[in-house]
This record gives sequence, structure tokens and C-alpha cells, in this order.
Amino acid sequence: MSIYLNLLFIVGILGVLFAIYRTLFIFKQDEGTDKMKKIAKAISEGAMAFLKREYTVLSVFVIVVAILLAVFLKDQAKNTAIAFVIGAIFSALAGYIGMKISVASNVRTANSARESLTKALTVAFSSGNVMGFTVASLGLLGLTAFIKIFGIHDAKDIVGGFAMGASSIALFARVGGGIYTKGADVGADLVGKVEQGIPEDDPRNPAVIADNVGDNVGDIAGMGADLYESYVGSMVATITLAFFSPKLFPTDAMVINATMLPLLVAGIGLFASLVGALFVKTSDPKKVHTALTNGMLISSIVSIVGFYFILNRLFDKATAMNLYWAVVSGLVAGFLIGKITEYYTDANYKPTQEVSESSKTGAATNIISGLALGMNSTALPVIIVSGVILIAYKFAGLYGIALSAVGMLATVAMTVSVDAYGPVADNAGGIAEMAGLEPEVRKITDRLDSVGNTTAAIGKGFAISSAAVTALALFSSYLEKVQLDSLDITAPRVLVGLFVGGMLPYIFCARTMKSVGKTAEAIIIEVRRQFKDIVGIMEEEADPEYSKCVDIATASALKQMVIPGVAAVIIPILVGLWDKAALGGLLAGTLVSSFLLAIFMANAGGAWDNAKKYIEEGHHGGKGSDAHKAAVVGDTVGDPFKDTSGPSLNILMKLMSIVSLVCASMFI
Amino acid sequence: MSIYLNLLFIVGILGVLFAIYRTLFIFKQDEGTDKMKKIAKAISEGAMAFLKREYTVLSVFVIVVAILLAVFLKDQAKNTAIAFVIGAIFSALAGYIGMKISVASNVRTANSARESLTKALTVAFSSGNVMGFTVASLGLLGLTAFIKIFGIHDAKDIVGGFAMGASSIALFARVGGGIYTKGADVGADLVGKVEQGIPEDDPRNPAVIADNVGDNVGDIAGMGADLYESYVGSMVATITLAFFSPKLFPTDAMVINATMLPLLVAGIGLFASLVGALFVKTSDPKKVHTALTNGMLISSIVSIVGFYFILNRLFDKATAMNLYWAVVSGLVAGFLIGKITEYYTDANYKPTQEVSESSKTGAATNIISGLALGMNSTALPVIIVSGVILIAYKFAGLYGIALSAVGMLATVAMTVSVDAYGPVADNAGGIAEMAGLEPEVRKITDRLDSVGNTTAAIGKGFAISSAAVTALALFSSYLEKVQLDSLDITAPRVLVGLFVGGMLPYIFCARTMKSVGKTAEAIIIEVRRQFKDIVGIMEEEADPEYSKCVDIATASALKQMVIPGVAAVIIPILVGLWDKAALGGLLAGTLVSSFLLAIFMANAGGAWDNAKKYIEEGHHGGKGSDAHKAAVVGDTVGDPFKDTSGPSLNILMKLMSIVSLVCASMFI
Repeated sequence: MSIYLNLLFIVGILGVLFAIYRTLFIFKQDEGTDKMKKIAKAISEGAMAFLKREYTVLSVFVIVVAILLAVFLKDQAKNTAIAFVIGAIFSALAGYIGMKISVASNVRTANSARESLTKALTVAFSSGNVMGFTVASLGLLGLTAFIKIFGIHDAKDIVGGFAMGASSIALFARVGGGIYTKGADVGADLVGKVEQGIPEDDPRNPAVIADNVGDNVGDIAGMGADLYESYVGSMVATITLAFFSPKLFPTDAMVINATMLPLLVAGIGLFASLVGALFVKTSDPKKVHTALTNGMLISSIVSIVGFYFILNRLFDKATAMNLYWAVVSGLVAGFLIGKITEYYTDANYKPTQEVSESSKTGAATNIISGLALGMNSTALPVIIVSGVILIAYKFAGLYGIALSAVGMLATVAMTVSVDAYGPVADNAGGIAEMAGLEPEVRKITDRLDSVGNTTAAIGKGFAISSAAVTALALFSSYLEKVQLDSLDITAPRVLVGLFVGGMLPYIFCARTMKSVGKTAEAIIIEVRRQFKDIVGIMEEEADPEYSKCVDIATASALKQMVIPGVAAVIIPILVGLWDKAALGGLLAGTLVSSFLLAIFMANAGGAWDNAKKYIEEGHHGGKGSDAHKAAVVGDTVGDPFKDTSGPSLNILMKLMSIVSLVCASMFI
Repeated sequence: MSIYLNLLFIVGILGVLFAIYRTLFIFKQDEGTDKMKKIAKAISEGAMAFLKREYTVLSVFVIVVAILLAVFLKDQAKNTAIAFVIGAIFSALAGYIGMKISVASNVRTANSARESLTKALTVAFSSGNVMGFTVASLGLLGLTAFIKIFGIHDAKDIVGGFAMGASSIALFARVGGGIYTKGADVGADLVGKVEQGIPEDDPRNPAVIADNVGDNVGDIAGMGADLYESYVGSMVATITLAFFSPKLFPTDAMVINATMLPLLVAGIGLFASLVGALFVKTSDPKKVHTALTNGMLISSIVSIVGFYFILNRLFDKATAMNLYWAVVSGLVAGFLIGKITEYYTDANYKPTQEVSESSKTGAATNIISGLALGMNSTALPVIIVSGVILIAYKFAGLYGIALSAVGMLATVAMTVSVDAYGPVADNAGGIAEMAGLEPEVRKITDRLDSVGNTTAAIGKGFAISSAAVTALALFSSYLEKVQLDSLDITAPRVLVGLFVGGMLPYIFCARTMKSVGKTAEAIIIEVRRQFKDIVGIMEEEADPEYSKCVDIATASALKQMVIPGVAAVIIPILVGLWDKAALGGLLAGTLVSSFLLAIFMANAGGAWDNAKKYIEEGHHGGKGSDAHKAAVVGDTVGDPFKDTSGPSLNILMKLMSIVSLVCASMFI
């Protein structure tokens, strides 16, 4: 076992070294013109201001929760509390590094686009690498260290705290970040485009920096924290379930190997991601997407081969093959769901084209058509996840379901790399616009951005599915931990749990959507004030006070997220204290309802966005036509759908499950 | 027992007599001017054309299903098939009578408004009475007859067929009718208002009659069939569960009484509705709503008193009181959920005013705000239904839950009366407009209509909740019938059932929303053709061909509903043949998801509608302002939400449960 732990450390450190190598590469690049430097500095300051404030609120939250855990838990209370704090610090660290690098890369990608597409792609993708490999390495190193220090038997009860720490940060990053990014976006657009008639990304708009900060905060830090949470959560669930699968693992030695397995699967995935990342290169503008997809495919294939060998080393042939199908089903499902998301949200396919077409008869038909698309798009992901459940369970029981989640997330370093690349390319385009760079430069960043939109949509589908499978794994671990052999829907409390659990995501979405509105309002008031009070903004004779808008968006987003955040932690505890089976029903209801709503909202939002872009490319009358105006309505509705409320549900379902798992000892 | 059956026959016949009395009263009224007569004739012909076509398709469906039931069922196959056919015929008959009367009353209400408000209210409400009392009496008489003829032991296995027959008609009436009404509405509006610039309800619009027919088809026949299905379904479920509650009813005599109880509760409710209906009278325009509410309250109080006496006659004191709390909790919950719906969708309260306010910043914020309202509004109904589940189960187990559904629906005659009154008043207003009646007449019909909107919204909330509780009762009966003592969510097939079941309502909604669009498109093409081909329509020199539009809407609606309809019947059977527990999971998933989505969609739609009306009353710039334009977008999105997709889910959850219950013998 010790040799495996050492190998894991080596792979984890390799990942860190790769991230450092990419970081050095990025910082070697030039920032470009003085104007670009000035803009980049403003964004960087804004992003750091947000992180600082977020982390201040967070540290209070983390300390309070840690104390509560230390006082109220019945087993391993202090160590779990410590693990919780460390989990939070690791996730916050990954977020900090990711933001720092992405902000630095935005401007450097823009500047590299002045040289060549290859260069710009490399810089943008490198930035994704830093985030991706930091996330994966920190997660893997953290869990490995816990096992090394405490030994497997104690560690299995402690690592729940580590995952819960990750969840807490994810809550703030995804929910707070989601509110921030769309509040700033909507606020900037409504005053800038609509009232003042200036284009997007115009430096005269006082909210333009807040908007750009938001893209980093929500799309990069939020997404990274979300996947980090799934990554750690799925491993923790699998470790827990290894101890509750006597049929599958009859001997102690097998249990130990089963505990190590999720880490080893993740280690192989991390190594495979490293290999895949080295293959992402192209100079052909049409092959950017192919280059990224190839990188993903190579990582997947290397992983699938690696899984086979490690399983046959750890287990007898029959057990090894059983586990193999479970882990591979997860990996394949993640890939498929990404592709399905692409089908539903990419204007190259029929569904989004229909939404675009329906814009010709006005905003109402555009909205109805997008909502119908989103609802329709729930079918295939549900069927695929159902398939994974049936296959994984058939071969390896509840442990198999958890292991399939680990398989899905094994190559998370690569997934985050590809996903984070998109917003960097997007922001590079914004900076190119603000700095008034040549049209050819914008052409390159637009090309990168358009691919980035697709990869971001795929990433969203992947994030939702992996969150669902992780939540399911955590839910199963919870049931084992509170010694519920079965969870009977006909028991009235379970049934009530199911109803109430199903309802929570609706309330959560309603709340986060409204928060976006409130944040946007606060920004609008400030921007109007600046246009009135600061003479010469429109003539570019005076600079707007960017930082004021950043402050306002930060304060509003953090304030708005407190109630939903605290509710997500408190509700499962209260229900669990009432009845542990009712809590089981609650978690099941939240899981099913969140999964469906999240897909519905993410895909509707993605389709509206791309339907609008499709019209802007010249279809159905092009930019400025009535169809375009109708499509803009859909796009605006879609913003909180796909970037705030939808993704927040990923956190809701995982956080509620992990809180239940960690607090299980209180409910018995 | 026989005395009770005789009493039930008497009450049922009393209900029929009351309906006949009201019918005679309505037909005694004058139809008004020649123009009114002409319009009324066109609407009447259109409505009958729709019914004829619907019933033709239906009879094929009913015959095929009846044959399948007779061949494939294992117990009481032939009798169940016969019961199925009779259930369908009874429901179709109630629909036919309701439509015939409502169409006759529309014009007579308009004409009575030329005399006085009291007169108009009486005519409109009488029309609701005919529908309400026909529905309740036919349901009660049918079930009573089955018990009389077959005896309780055989009847208990047969009446499932009766309920399934009702469900089949409800499917066609609610889903087909819902697609028809909104397809015609949207189609008429888009060409009439938008392209030709003529007002709503203008007789020059070739689709105007189809639009008016739709209001009768969807709002009256659809709603009536929906509640009839719940009414019969809840009684059938309770009858079934009476045989599976040995703890509660240890002796045979008690079981017999427990089987009679739902019928007696319904009988008391029917009698109480009769009493309540006689109190609905007012001449004060401001007290229309109060008059209706008082009628409901009186019916409820009479019922609550009646329940107490009948229970104490049938059971020992302790059992009687246990059952009493179950039945009363349902009745109270139905009332409360109605009030909550009113709060969320009436412009007198904050939520709808906020949607109205948000229209000032455009269509997108109006949409977001309405969606958030709809999502938020799921909380209280879920909590109330959860409360009913906990209370009813605590006092009387699963039987108690089913009984609470019967309690909720006991006064259905009154509920349908109040609910059906709204569309009649609405259509009367339309006819007054088309016939060019004096403004004072419109003022009276507007007043009646505005109250009708509120009662319709309350009715929708009530219909959803009663559908959910009925589906839950049927689901419980299914579990008992297939001998599943528990339904374990941790079993992978149950879990998969839960996921897939949760997803079905989304697909169902997507499909029905799209169907509205397709039907509207077909109408638009026809209306454009008529404006082009028939010279002199706009100058009122030539009549448009109304019947063509009616035909097209009918054909399209019926065609569009076939796939979702058949799917709702086939899917549970296929899943049940695979695994009876998976079917349990599927039903639970569909139930929770349908309930939530239905409330979300109905309330969002209701709020958008009234937010628009609130602006039209002069707020935020009034009619024609930008805020109004934005609110129109929300209203248009809300149309299929509240009148097609949302209500269709009521049918989906009940139909799937009743099909499972009836086919239970195939799954063991």
C-alpha cells in the first residue's frame, strides 16, 4: 500500500510541476500595449478585490462551521473539523491560483493573438492547464496525505470533512460567483448598451471591468471549485462505501485495496491528462475544436488502459473486471453527456437552429422554444445516468456507482483545462476590443472564443452529470453510515422528504435568479451616478471609477448568497435530527429535481445564447433585425439560467449530501 | 349497507335534477340580438365539431384499450374492460353536457348583462352548476351502481377500469383541449392583433370563433374532465386501500364500511354543494367574489359537519375520529392551496405586482421575474400537501391519505361550478365585444370576468393539488395491489425509475408547448390565406370562413396529442413488465416532478396574465407603453404554461398511476 501512496504523491507533484511550468510560460509572455496593461491591471485588481472579500466572509463561515463540527460530531470530531478547514483552504488556494493565472492570461492571450493563432491558443490553453492541474493535484495530494497520516481506518471518517470544506468553497465560488458575474453583466449591458448606446466591452462603461472580472469569477473560479468538489466528493464516497461492501470485498486486504482504488483511478486520470494536454496544438483555425477534443480523447484512452492494469494488479480477475465496467461506464457517460450538451446548445445542430428560427415571430416564441428545448434535453442525460446506475450497480453494487463517478471525474485536470480555456479566450476578445486592437486580432480571438463557447457548454453538461453522480455516491454513503439498509418511499416521512427535497431546487433557483436582478440593479444605479457625476466619461476625457462597480457587485453577490448557502447546510441537519430516513428522502428528492432543473436551465440558456449568435452571423435578418431583438430577450433570460441558477444546483445537491454524510453520527 | 347505497342514489339523482333545473333556467333566457345569435351559433357549431371529432378519435382509443384490457388482464378482465368503457362514456357525457350548456350560456350571459349584474351572474354561475353537478352526480352514481351490481368484493377490482376510463377522456380533453385552446388563441392573436391590427374578439378575424371555441374546450370541458378524473380516482384508490388496512379495519364489517366511506363522503359533499350553490347571489358588483367564496365556505362547513355524523355512525368513536382528521385535513388543504394560488397570481398582492414592475425594464426581466415567482410558489403547496400526508397517515395510514384526497374533492360540484363560471363570463365578454354591445354591458361582463380570472386561478391550484393527492392515493393502491410492502430507493431499478419518472413531465411539457406552436402556425397560414383569398373581410362586406379554422385547430390538436397520450399509457406498462418496483419508482418520480412543474407553470402563467392586466389598468404607463409590450411577451409565454402544459401534468400523473393500478395483475 505504501508504494501506491508514494506513487500517488509522485503523480500529484508531477501535476503541480506541470502547473508551475505552464505558469512560468504564461508569465514569460508580453502583456502588450500600455492600454492593454492598464485594462489588465484593473481587471486583476477587481478580481483580487472580489477574492479577498469572498475569502474574508468565507473564513468566518469556515471557522464557525469547523467549531460546530468539533463540538457536535460524535466520531473523530476534531480531526474532521481540521480536515474541513484544510479542504476549504486547498479549494480556496486552487481558486486563487486559477484566478490569478486566468487574469494574467487574458491580456497575454490577446497580445499573442497579434502574433498567431497557435500562440494564442497555447497561452489560453496553458491557463486552463494551470487551473485544471492545480485542482486535480491538490485534491489528490490532500486525500493521499490524510490516508498517509491517519491510516485508512481513521482517515475514512475524517476525509468527509475534507470534501465538505471543498463544498463550502464551491458554494461561495459558484453561487456567489454566479450572482456576481451575471449581475455585473446584465447591469453593464442595460445601462451601457440600452441607455447610453455604447457597445459591449467599451472602456467608457464604468461596469465594464466588473463585467470582465465576473467572467473570471464565475466561469473559471466557480467552475473549477465545482469540479474540484465533485472530484474530492466522489473519492470520499467511494472510500466510505469500500467499508460497506462485504460481498464484493470479503477480506480486509481487499477492503484496503478498494479504499485505495479511487485515489489510484484519479492518479491514473491525472497522469493521462498530462499526456493528453501535451497533444493540444494546432495552427489551423478550423482545427481548434478538434485539437481540444483530441486531447480529451487521448486522456480518456490512456486512462481506460491504465484502469485495466491497476485493477488487475489490485484484485482477482473477476473482481477486477467487475470494477472495470463500473469505472469505464462513468468515464464514457461523462463523454457522451458532454456531446449531447453540444448537440442541444450548438447552432450547428437543429435544436438551437429552431430556437433561432422561432425568434422571427418574436420574443415570446423564442422563449417558449428555448424552454421546450431545455426540457427536452433532460431525456438523454437521464437515460445515460440511469444506464450508469444499472451497469455500475450490477457489477459492483453501491460501491460501483461511486466508482463510476470517480471514473467520470478521473481526467478532471483535462476537463477543467478545456473548460477554463473558453472564458480566457472570451476575455482576451474583450480586452482586444477595449484596447482597440486590429480587426485581425479580434478575428483570431473570436475564433478561439467560438470554440470556447462550445467547450464551455460541454463542460457545463459534464459538471451537472458529474455533480449528480457524485451526489448519488455521497447519498449512498450517507445511507450506509446511518445504517439505513433500505429507504422506503411508502414511509410517509420519506415521501414528505422526497416532496420537500424536490421543491428546494426550485426555491434555490428562484432566489438566485432574483439575486442577479438585485445585483444588476445596484450596478445600474452606480453606473448612472457616474455618468451623471463624472464629467467627460463619454468623451473619453475622464476615467470612470471601475472599482466602485466591482465593490458593489462583490458586496451584493456575497450578501445575496448567504441565505441560500446557510439554508443548504442547515436544512439537511434539521431534517436529519427529526428523522434520518426523512433526510434520505430529502436528499433523493433534491438530487432528482436538481439534476433535471440544472440540465433544463443550462441547455435552454446555452441554446438561447447561441441562437442569438447564429442570428448575428447573418441568419434570419442578422444583427439589429426584429428576430435579433427577440433573440436578445432569450439570451438575457438565459444568462442567469446557465451561469447562475443552473450551476448553483450542482453545489446544492452535493453540499446537502456531504453535510448529511459528515453529520451522520448525529442522526443515529 | 343497502340503505346507504339507496341514499347515495338519491343524492346523485338530486344532483342530476339540480343540473336539469339549472339547464331549463338557462334555456329560458333570451339569446339577444340577431348578431349575437349568429355568433353564438358559430361558436356552438365549432364546439360541437371539435367534440365530435375528439370523440371519434376517442372511441377508437377506448375500444382498442378495452379489448387489450379484456385480453391481457388476469383478474376480472372483461368486467374491468366494461367498466373502462362506461367510465369513458360517463366522462364524455359530462363533457358533452358541460360544453353544450356553457356554449348556450355564453351568449345568454352577455344578453343578461344588458339587464343587470345579478342576472348575468346567475346565468353564468348556473352554467357552472350544470357542469359541476353533472360531473359529481355521474361519478357518484356510476361508482354506486357498480357496487350495487357486482357487490363490494368484485366491484373493488372492477372500478379501477371506471377510473381509467375517466382518465382517458381527461387526457383527450385536457391535453387535446389545452393544445386547441392556446393554439387557436395564439394563432388568432398573432395574425389579428399583430399583422392586421384589429382588436381581440373582432368578428373579422377568421380565427375568432376557433379562439372562442377553445375557451370552452380547454377551460370548461378540460377542467371538468380533470376534476372528474380526480374525483373518481380518489374514491377508487380509497376503496382499494380499504382492503389493505387490517390494522385500521380488523373486522369484515369495518372493511365494508371503509369501502362505503369514500362514496358517503362524496355524497355528503354533493349535498353540501347543493346547499352552497343556492347561496350564490349578489347585486353588488364588488361582492361577486365574496358571493362565490361564501358559497364555497358554506359547502365546506356543511360537509365538515356531515363527515362527523357519518363517521360516528359507521365506526367506533376512536376510529371515527382518526378518519375524521384525515378527511378534514384534505378538505382544508384544498381550500388553503386555492388561497395560496390566489396570493401568487392576483394583482392585488405583491408577487404579481413585482412581475408587473419588472416589465418596466423589458421583456427579459418580466420573464425572469415570472419564472422566479412560479418557482417560489411551489414551496407552500408542497408544505401543505406534506402536512396532509403526515396527518392523514398518522391517523389512518395509507387509507387515510387516500381518504384525504376524497375529502379534498368532496365538494367538487361547487368547485367546478365556481371554476367554470369564469370562462363563461370571459366568453360572454367576447360575444358582447363581437356583437358590438353597449360599453355598460362590457363593464358588467368585465367585472364578472375579472372575478372569474381569480376563481379560475384558484381552481387551477386546486386541480393540481387534488391531482397530486389522487395520484398519490392511486400510487399507494398500486403498491398494495402488486404486494410491494416497501419501495426501496436504494434499489437501483427503483432509483432509475425515480430519475426517469422525474424526467417524463419535462418531456411531456416540452412536447405540449411545441404542439401549441404548431397548431398556432397552422391557424396563421389559414387566416392569412382567407385575408388574401376572400375579398372584403376587412371591410365587413364578406364573412370569413370560421369553420375552416375550427377544423384546422381540431385536427392539429388531436394529432399532436396522440404521441404524449399513448406514451403516458404505454410507458408504465413497459416499465411494470420489466420490474414492478421500478414502476413504483417511476410513479413516485413522475408524481413529485409533475406536481412541482405544474404549480410552477400554472402560477407563473397566471401571474404573467394578471401582471399584464394590471398594467392595462393604467399602472407603469398603461396600455401601449413599453412595459405593456414587455408584459404581453410574458402573457404569451404564460398561455401554454398555464392552460396547456401545466394542466396536462395533472392528467399525466393520474393516468400513469391508474394504468399501473389497473394493470397490476400483469406485473406480479
